[in-house]
Amino acid sequence: MTTGIERVEEFVGAWNVLDMEKVLGMMTDDIVYHNIPMPVLNGIEAVRGMLGKMKAEQADWTIHAIAERDNVVLTERTDRFLINGKWASVRVMGTFELTPEGKIKAWRDYFDLQEWVSQIS
Amino acid sequence: MTTGIERVEEFVGAWNVLDMEKVLGMMTDDIVYHNIPMPVLNGIEAVRGMLGKMKAEQADWTIHAIAERDNVVLTERTDRFLINGKWASVRVMGTFELTPEGKIKAWRDYFDLQEWVSQIS
Repeated sequence: MTTGIERVEEFVGAWNVLDMEKVLGMMTDDIVYHNIPMPVLNGIEAVRGMLGKMKAEQADWTIHAIAERDNVVLTERTDRFLINGKWASVRVMGTFELTPEGKIKAWRDYFDLQEWVSQIS
Repeated sequence: MTTGIERVEEFVGAWNVLDMEKVLGMMTDDIVYHNIPMPVLNGIEAVRGMLGKMKAEQADWTIHAIAERDNVVLTERTDRFLINGKWASVRVMGTFELTPEGKIKAWRDYFDLQEWVSQIS
């Protein structure tokens, strides 16, 4: 039996090799993905569209803390991305709500938008 | 045996009645308290000084999700404060590192600073 923690670790692993088909495949079709300071994305096609616009050449996410209860996994992370040859990072916490089968049906990331924007603009 | 989740729920309960002596009493003397978009506060006296400057007349924090592993408790919350007669709220996730005795030795809250500042200024 795969735990929720293991599923989210696998999801982060997919990010870290930028395997976007695997990332998308681990979400439900009706995924609700919300970078809290930004507009919510509803559904897998909205997420696919956003990922298609991503300019990251590499990703390197580190999980500092992770815990789960009742199919909900909470994480504390630093997410780094190589964009236009320069590494940018954001300190973030995220909640992942999983189905009983281990698919991600909701993902909410909390971070300071200015911390991110100041590095990539 | 009190769980870490119960301790953090008790801590949020102390906030919700603005019992600042209880809040401080649940932290270690060498607490590291970091609102991530702001400077870190090291030690209980720094935290006491910050709380003394708080202008909240009431607090109303809601825990949306909570989980623990290895004396670390992760939370997803909405924190509301009544300030100058007006409610302001911030969507936030926070990590609480506990000692084996259940005191908070580190607290890190992740949120969008502008979301907060825009409501109180």
